[in-house]
Amino acid sequence: MSLRVAVVGCGTVGSQVVRLLTTSVDDLSARVGDRLELVGVADRRPEAVVAQGVDPALVTEDSEGLVTRADIVVELIGGTEPARGLMLAALGSGASVVTANKALLAADGPTLYDAAAAAGVDLYYEAAVAGAIPVVRVIREGMLGDQVRRVLGIVNGTTNYVLDTMTTDGLDLDRAVKDAQRLGYAEADPTADVEGHDAAAKAALLASMAFHTRVSIDDVSCEGITGITDDDVAWAQRTGHVVKLLAVAERLSGGISVRVHPALVPQTHPLAGVRGAFNAVFIEAEAAGPIMLYGQGAGGVPTASAVVSDIVSAARNRVTGGRGPVESVYAALPVLPPAAAVSRFQVRLDVADRTGVLATVSTVLADAGVSIESVRQSPGGAVGRQAPVDVAHLVITTHEATEAARVATLAALDRLDVVYEVVSVIRVEGDMP
Amino acid sequence: MSLRVAVVGCGTVGSQVVRLLTTSVDDLSARVGDRLELVGVADRRPEAVVAQGVDPALVTEDSEGLVTRADIVVELIGGTEPARGLMLAALGSGASVVTANKALLAADGPTLYDAAAAAGVDLYYEAAVAGAIPVVRVIREGMLGDQVRRVLGIVNGTTNYVLDTMTTDGLDLDRAVKDAQRLGYAEADPTADVEGHDAAAKAALLASMAFHTRVSIDDVSCEGITGITDDDVAWAQRTGHVVKLLAVAERLSGGISVRVHPALVPQTHPLAGVRGAFNAVFIEAEAAGPIMLYGQGAGGVPTASAVVSDIVSAARNRVTGGRGPVESVYAALPVLPPAAAVSRFQVRLDVADRTGVLATVSTVLADAGVSIESVRQSPGGAVGRQAPVDVAHLVITTHEATEAARVATLAALDRLDVVYEVVSVIRVEGDMP
Repeated sequence: MSLRVAVVGCGTVGSQVVRLLTTSVDDLSARVGDRLELVGVADRRPEAVVAQGVDPALVTEDSEGLVTRADIVVELIGGTEPARGLMLAALGSGASVVTANKALLAADGPTLYDAAAAAGVDLYYEAAVAGAIPVVRVIREGMLGDQVRRVLGIVNGTTNYVLDTMTTDGLDLDRAVKDAQRLGYAEADPTADVEGHDAAAKAALLASMAFHTRVSIDDVSCEGITGITDDDVAWAQRTGHVVKLLAVAERLSGGISVRVHPALVPQTHPLAGVRGAFNAVFIEAEAAGPIMLYGQGAGGVPTASAVVSDIVSAARNRVTGGRGPVESVYAALPVLPPAAAVSRFQVRLDVADRTGVLATVSTVLADAGVSIESVRQSPGGAVGRQAPVDVAHLVITTHEATEAARVATLAALDRLDVVYEVVSVIRVEGDMP
Repeated sequence: MSLRVAVVGCGTVGSQVVRLLTTSVDDLSARVGDRLELVGVADRRPEAVVAQGVDPALVTEDSEGLVTRADIVVELIGGTEPARGLMLAALGSGASVVTANKALLAADGPTLYDAAAAAGVDLYYEAAVAGAIPVVRVIREGMLGDQVRRVLGIVNGTTNYVLDTMTTDGLDLDRAVKDAQRLGYAEADPTADVEGHDAAAKAALLASMAFHTRVSIDDVSCEGITGITDDDVAWAQRTGHVVKLLAVAERLSGGISVRVHPALVPQTHPLAGVRGAFNAVFIEAEAAGPIMLYGQGAGGVPTASAVVSDIVSAARNRVTGGRGPVESVYAALPVLPPAAAVSRFQVRLDVADRTGVLATVSTVLADAGVSIESVRQSPGGAVGRQAPVDVAHLVITTHEATEAARVATLAALDRLDVVYEVVSVIRVEGDMP
C-alpha cells in the first residue's frame, strides 16, 4: 500500500512540489518508510500544468474529487475559497493537509485545526512563514521546553529587498519598488507586501505558536513601509541602524503584543545583516537565549522544500500511527491593544534654530514620561532638504515607551510653535537581551 | 497517570534541566497533554545536588534503580560508561531516552538506536549538537523533503571564542586560550576543544542526519586550531577572510566527506559574523538553498532548553502513541577517505626575492593540477616577521583541489630551492552557492 499525495494548485510553488515529488520519490519514500505516490494535480488551468511536463494522466480540474481520494492533500491555491472548502473536505475525508496558506491560517486557522483534530489527522504549514526556513518546526517543537519572550522576524522578502536597495543604492521608495518589480521580487500590485499585510499574517502565526495562544490577523497592528523615505534610511545609517520591516511578537507583563512596523535595528544586531530578499527570524527565549534562523523566504523552489518536508512528516506519521504538532493554545494570553506596545523610538524634528528649543522639546517628552536616550542636533538643510536657514534638525532617540505615550508625545510636539515639522518617527527594535 | 521523568547526572546542564522541570512544570505539562513528574535525580554526589536546592526525596545515588522506573530517562553524565549501560537499561525497560552525549552517539550511536527501535521508544539528542540551537530537529525533520549538499558548522564555542579573540584583540593562541579559560569558555585541559575532537563528534552526527548514512567519529578527519598563529589570523583579515574552526559534512560525487579543520571563511559569509562563543550551522540544500541557524552552543541554561524540549517531545509521543524520528540510514553513502576531500586553500610561502620565482612556484601548482585564483607578493619582514632582506612573502589562494593534490603540491613546493619555508596552509570554505 502506498501513501497517496494530491496537490491542489500548481503555480510557482506547486509546480516545484510536483517536480520534487517526481524526481526524488525514491529518497522521499525511504524517509517515509512507505511508498509516496502522487495521485493527482488539480489546477483550474490543467493545460498549463501539462505544458510544464506533468503526466497528463495526473492532471485534473476536479479538485473537489481529487482531495477526497488522497492520504495527504497539499493545498497551494492560497486565499480563502476554494482553498478552505477543499482543505475541510480533505480533513473530513481523513486526509492530512499540508498548506502554505498563511492568509487563511491567520484569519481562520481554528476552523482548520478543529477539523484536523476531529479527524485525528495532521495540519502542517511550514511554508506559510518564511519559505524554506523551518521556523514553524523550530517554534512548535524546538521551543517546547522553553518560554519564548520575543520573536522579531524579517518575514517579507519584498520589503526587505526594497529597504536594502534604499540603504545600499540610495534609491527612494518608488524607485526601489520598481527595481524589485523588475527583478521579480515584487508583484505588479505590491500593496500586500509594502503595506505589511503579508507580514501581519505571518506575525499572527508566529505569535500563536510562540505563546500558545490563538492570535488572528485582526489582532495584529500593522504599519507598512510606504512612509519610509530615503532620508529616513540615510539617518538610520548615520545613527548606527538599518531600517527593517519587522514582525514582532512579544510577551509583556499583561499579555502579548503582536505587530508589524518598520523599525530601526542596530547595525550590530544579527537581523541587520539580512540582505536582499532573504528572511530571518530572531527568537529570544528564557533559557535558550537568542536564536536566529536565516534563509530564503520565498520563491517556488525554496518554498517547495518546506512543503515537501511537511508531506514527508505527515506521511511518516501515517505510517507510524503518530501525530504531528496540534494547535497549542492552552496559555490563552490576552492580546494587548496597540497602545500597550512598548518600543524605543527615534523622532526627527525640524525646529527653530535658537537657544532653549531643546529644553522645550525635552520638557514635552519628560511630561509624557518618555525618557531620552540621545539627541543629535544639526543645522537645517542637511541631507538634501531645502529649508529656511533658521531651521535645525533634531534627532531624538528615546528609551522604551508605550505606544500610547509615543502618540501623546508626538501630538504635543506637533503643537509646539518651535517645532516646524515632525519629519518622521520610527520605532527602534532589537536591543540585545 | 503522569509521565515519570528521571534525570541522571546533575552537573551544569542537569541542574538546569531539573530547575526548568520544577519551575515550568505546569506549562510543560500543558504542552505534553499530561502531567510531567520528576521522579528522581541520580548523581554520584547526591549531597551536592541537595545543596542546589533539589528536594532530597528525589535525589539518589542509585542511577541503575532509577532508570528502570521512569517513562523518560534524561542522561547527562556524558562519556562512555556508565552512560551507555544506563541508557541501554532505560531503553530496555521501555523508557524513552533524552541525551546530550555526543561522544557516545558519535562512537556507538547504532547500539543506542537499535535498542530504541527494539523497544519502540524514542531516542532524542538535540543538545548533543550546538546546545540551544535546534539543528538536530531542523536537519532530521525540516530537511526531510530536500537533499542536503553541505553542512558547515561552527559547533565548538571554545575555539570560536579563541579565534575571535585572536582576530579582534590580536592575541596569540596561548594568550587567547588562557583568556577563554579565565572567562569559563575553555576547560582547564582544553585539548578536546582545541584539537577539534568535540567538533568531530558533532560533525559525525550532522553528517549522519544530513546524508541518511551511518557516520562514526572514526570516519571524521580532524585537525584542530593549535597550528593557527596570530600571523595566520592577520593574513586572513588582509585577504578578506576570518579563521573559523569548521565541522564540514559534504556530499561529493563518490560519497560524503566529513571533516573538522580551521578554514578561511570570506568576511561576507554569514558564518564570518559569528562572534565569541556562539555557534552556527550553515546548511546548503538543493531546494531550500542556504539556511543558517545561530545561537548559544553551550552553557547549562541554553543546553537545558534543548534537553527539556526533547523531554516534552518524547512525553508527547507517549501520550499520542507516536514516535519521534528514528535512525535514517537508508542512503548508506560511502564516507570518502580524507585525500578525496575537496577545498580551496591558501598557502603562504617565504621565497627568494628574485625574478622568476613566481613562475617556478606556479609551475609546481599547475603540474599538480591545482589552479591558482590569486597571488599576493610582498617584501619579507612584513607582519612582524624577522627575515633576511632577500625574502619575499607569497600568499597564494587556489581554486578547488583535492586534499591529495594539496598534499602533493605542498611537498613539491617544500622541495624547491627558492622556497625557504611553507609558512602556513589553510583551507578556504564557504563560497556562496
